[in-house]
Amino acid sequence: MTYQIPLRDIQFVLHELLQVPAMLEDCGQPELDAGTIDQVLAAAGQFASEVIAPLNAPGDAHGCSMPSPGVVQTPPGFKKAYDEFTKNGWAGLACSPEFGGQGFPSVVANAVYEVFGGANMAWASYPGMSHATYVNVSANGSEEQKALYLPKIASGEWAGTMCLTEPNAGTDLGLMRTRAVAQPDGSYSITGSKIFISGGEQDLTGNIMHLVLARITDAPPGVKGISLFIVPKFIPDANGAAGARNGVVCGSIEHKLGIHGNSTCTINFDGATGWLLGAPNKGLAGMFVQMNHMRVLVGMIAIGLMEAAYQKALAYAKDRLQGRTSGARSSSEVADPIIGHADVRRMLLTQKANIEGARALALWTAQLSDLQRLHPDPARRNETAELLGLLTPLVKALSSDLAVEGTLLAMQVFGGHGYIRENGVEQHLRDVRIVGLYEGTNGVQAMDLLGRKVLADRGRQMGAFLDMAGAFAETCGPREAMREFAEPLAALAADIRQLTSELVATSAHDPHAAGAAAAPYLRLVGHLALAWTWARMAEVAFRNAGSTDPIYASKIATARFYFQRLLPQTAALCGEIRAGSSALMEPAVELL
Amino acid sequence: MTYQIPLRDIQFVLHELLQVPAMLEDCGQPELDAGTIDQVLAAAGQFASEVIAPLNAPGDAHGCSMPSPGVVQTPPGFKKAYDEFTKNGWAGLACSPEFGGQGFPSVVANAVYEVFGGANMAWASYPGMSHATYVNVSANGSEEQKALYLPKIASGEWAGTMCLTEPNAGTDLGLMRTRAVAQPDGSYSITGSKIFISGGEQDLTGNIMHLVLARITDAPPGVKGISLFIVPKFIPDANGAAGARNGVVCGSIEHKLGIHGNSTCTINFDGATGWLLGAPNKGLAGMFVQMNHMRVLVGMIAIGLMEAAYQKALAYAKDRLQGRTSGARSSSEVADPIIGHADVRRMLLTQKANIEGARALALWTAQLSDLQRLHPDPARRNETAELLGLLTPLVKALSSDLAVEGTLLAMQVFGGHGYIRENGVEQHLRDVRIVGLYEGTNGVQAMDLLGRKVLADRGRQMGAFLDMAGAFAETCGPREAMREFAEPLAALAADIRQLTSELVATSAHDPHAAGAAAAPYLRLVGHLALAWTWARMAEVAFRNAGSTDPIYASKIATARFYFQRLLPQTAALCGEIRAGSSALMEPAVELL
Repeated sequence: MTYQIPLRDIQFVLHELLQVPAMLEDCGQPELDAGTIDQVLAAAGQFASEVIAPLNAPGDAHGCSMPSPGVVQTPPGFKKAYDEFTKNGWAGLACSPEFGGQGFPSVVANAVYEVFGGANMAWASYPGMSHATYVNVSANGSEEQKALYLPKIASGEWAGTMCLTEPNAGTDLGLMRTRAVAQPDGSYSITGSKIFISGGEQDLTGNIMHLVLARITDAPPGVKGISLFIVPKFIPDANGAAGARNGVVCGSIEHKLGIHGNSTCTINFDGATGWLLGAPNKGLAGMFVQMNHMRVLVGMIAIGLMEAAYQKALAYAKDRLQGRTSGARSSSEVADPIIGHADVRRMLLTQKANIEGARALALWTAQLSDLQRLHPDPARRNETAELLGLLTPLVKALSSDLAVEGTLLAMQVFGGHGYIRENGVEQHLRDVRIVGLYEGTNGVQAMDLLGRKVLADRGRQMGAFLDMAGAFAETCGPREAMREFAEPLAALAADIRQLTSELVATSAHDPHAAGAAAAPYLRLVGHLALAWTWARMAEVAFRNAGSTDPIYASKIATARFYFQRLLPQTAALCGEIRAGSSALMEPAVELL
Repeated sequence: MTYQIPLRDIQFVLHELLQVPAMLEDCGQPELDAGTIDQVLAAAGQFASEVIAPLNAPGDAHGCSMPSPGVVQTPPGFKKAYDEFTKNGWAGLACSPEFGGQGFPSVVANAVYEVFGGANMAWASYPGMSHATYVNVSANGSEEQKALYLPKIASGEWAGTMCLTEPNAGTDLGLMRTRAVAQPDGSYSITGSKIFISGGEQDLTGNIMHLVLARITDAPPGVKGISLFIVPKFIPDANGAAGARNGVVCGSIEHKLGIHGNSTCTINFDGATGWLLGAPNKGLAGMFVQMNHMRVLVGMIAIGLMEAAYQKALAYAKDRLQGRTSGARSSSEVADPIIGHADVRRMLLTQKANIEGARALALWTAQLSDLQRLHPDPARRNETAELLGLLTPLVKALSSDLAVEGTLLAMQVFGGHGYIRENGVEQHLRDVRIVGLYEGTNGVQAMDLLGRKVLADRGRQMGAFLDMAGAFAETCGPREAMREFAEPLAALAADIRQLTSELVATSAHDPHAAGAAAAPYLRLVGHLALAWTWARMAEVAFRNAGSTDPIYASKIATARFYFQRLLPQTAALCGEIRAGSSALMEPAVELL
């Protein structure tokens, strides 16, 4: 079966829940109305189903290869699909018209990347990464750099990468050794080796703009001495076209659990010419613009894979006749579809609730990035930036964890057939597993949330977030229909408020308190965010209770499932957090 | 790094916790003392590390192949390792001396198969399955059949398989179509096609004894018309040697997520000659002897893979320098080993607690199968059989679910490096995923536990189990040191008792109640079993508090971690179960 865009649900989120068209009108882009967005979604769905989804399993089986040193071939068909992608303007979807782009907001582009990722994550990760470099250069580049590079990225003629990791420097970028030596002409000579570079070399584009972290001679040690550079594979000539080959070579490609069609490269810089992007020694902050963009994007792609796996599991559960169900039986068959079994329902509804909840949450987060950039009111932009900072690690880690759990459940619905390659779910599991590991592991996301966003200001930002959730619950709670959602939501917000103040207190004297609590705290806040999102969706659905469109009944039923069957997990998380750090840190290393 | 047998922990479980030598003395086998068992474990560890572990990654990369129709090649080296295995008598480890075996109890054999599975699951699954057919024929075969086949299995000259699944009959074996037509000579002509047959064809043994479920002409429909047959690949000649080729052909092998070195075959029976094993139409019950044996065995193998993944993650966490830890810092390095980070500790201790808890639980279950077979007191044998029936689905489903979670965590400890093939953890994840799907999916295990074992007798057996756990808590609770374990254990037993009686009541009027509760109920009972096991291990450790052997301090620390940080999950499970079936079953299929 072929991947299909979950069109109605994305429309529900964009138009009805988030009211993106109204936001765009507020932000001075009234031409991007619901009809225009729907056209983009329809075209994205068609491209996903007809062009890249058919390349997904073959691309996995074939993988990337190095036919000769430094040369990387993507799987058959990837280049042709990429050419069609650029020809139809997709590379510039969320780029500024100033640089040849179409100017769609991030929330629409993220919805589209969920679809491209769900259809073919390995393929979609090439243009996804390129667009992230567009975001980086937009934010940090000089006017000259923007004029030189951004039109090439917006057209898709050139790709981009982010080069951070080194063999001894992953999470701890302060350990990186790649060095940059200033040249008389204002450029830098870059030397070092980077690993795990997605799309570091490929055969899709005429040039690759590497964005590289390196240390300028005599820079301070650690993260305060890291600068960001543009290091193109081919140096742009006087006309801005790809010119002389730079000293940048792909040394090898990795063999991985999944995303076989996406090249993961060791990139060696050997006196390569680079240009500083942003201020010297401020490279990490510069790169974080791109990193934060990527964290939401890969969260969306994870949701796309959950959706793809769910589509397969749902179809199988409706089709597979096995056993008699406890309730109504089909009279004409000796067995009933397994979707009638309560445990199969449990697995399917868990996927559905997590997919739709995470989708709405991630798209809301993407919308915040648009508001932060576009909204005319500076106060609104500022408060939006805080909320965005809180939600970004949550979206990345929660979506990717839920996606692994979801693809595992989809496989479980298939029984033994789920283990077989041709049914396709096993690839989704292998592919999606990377999302919890890259762009900062999910443990790093959890420490970002609890350490930098919550404890650093003694819970002020988190308090504001809880206020918003609590206010929503208070507003809709008095309505009888909403009570089943509003009451547990308000109670959870109060629990987290209390727990957060406990953590503020504990972490003042226990250096391990934050680390010990971080992972379950992120998941707990994830539940709050999902519960709030589901309550918001139920509220929209109740307002449309008279409609014949089945999505509204589906939203209410799924919200109910979420609150009744998944939200109880918060009790476990609170218990785990309150257990503190002693059981973790007291045992000597030798006892492990 | 090479897999190492977790020797000290297995010794702790066998000798100190389960007191296997004393059990064997009670059962009339005093010659199998601790020293003899230790020799077996040492030899198993050596064979695992030196012979089969080195074949694990290459076997995965190479996989099985079909060089010509009907012929299956296992990966290079598998045959040589198998020959060494049989030469050293491992195939007969738990076989009766009457048939050339060594007569070790199941609890020792299961400990050994954890080690073989941890070192190379794909390889170990060939002899593991063969031994399960030994168990089947031992229980169900005529004296003539036993004399003909069992020595060949015990020596490893021949292998065995179980042939149950058909394309349209997986969980629901009542749908199977393979037919058996009685022949004048007392044999049957078997025709049909079976899928997912592990080791259905291979190049390791001179013959394969297929144990096949089929319907005799005019048998009743459904599961009451299924019979069990021995269908050898080569028909034994007058001397009992492999003779004429039978009408049994491997049609194809599957491409799978993992266990690439273990052939998964479609086996076509085309008028093949078979002999009834056990009584006609009682085949399912006959096969369940083997199935129940396999469920414990695959649970053990899952634990072995968790252990293998943990060994890698632990070594990496001690070796990888990244970031400064919150507590003590190494002065000579710019970064500390990541094992100093609380979140890494959380991931490692979760694995350790689940591995050691599940290992002790599974080996206790294997010990019950020995007691049931060997104990001189029939009353003891009977009550043991009930407990074994309760624990078998639990061991299978809990161990395999924990093993997937554990290998995912091991990969997470590695960060991005965990996604790379050469680090080996990704193979463990791919391999272990099958355990939750085969030998009855974990959903089937959950329904077996809750439906057949708990609700069918209105909670009587479960009540007896809870009584035992509660009695343990009561006995050791007054001792100050044990209170932190005894009190939560007693409380959980009381909770489950209450919840079980609620489920007995609800299921009387709600046909979906059992299905809706089954999966979380199994996990909840799993927590009780693990908590009890950890409390028992802590009690042994406290008795050895003066010892310099670090295992006792390790057991107490890990028990504390389990009770403080993992046991809170029971609150979530109780909440999910009490939510009942309505959120699952009320939505129309179209709303999913």
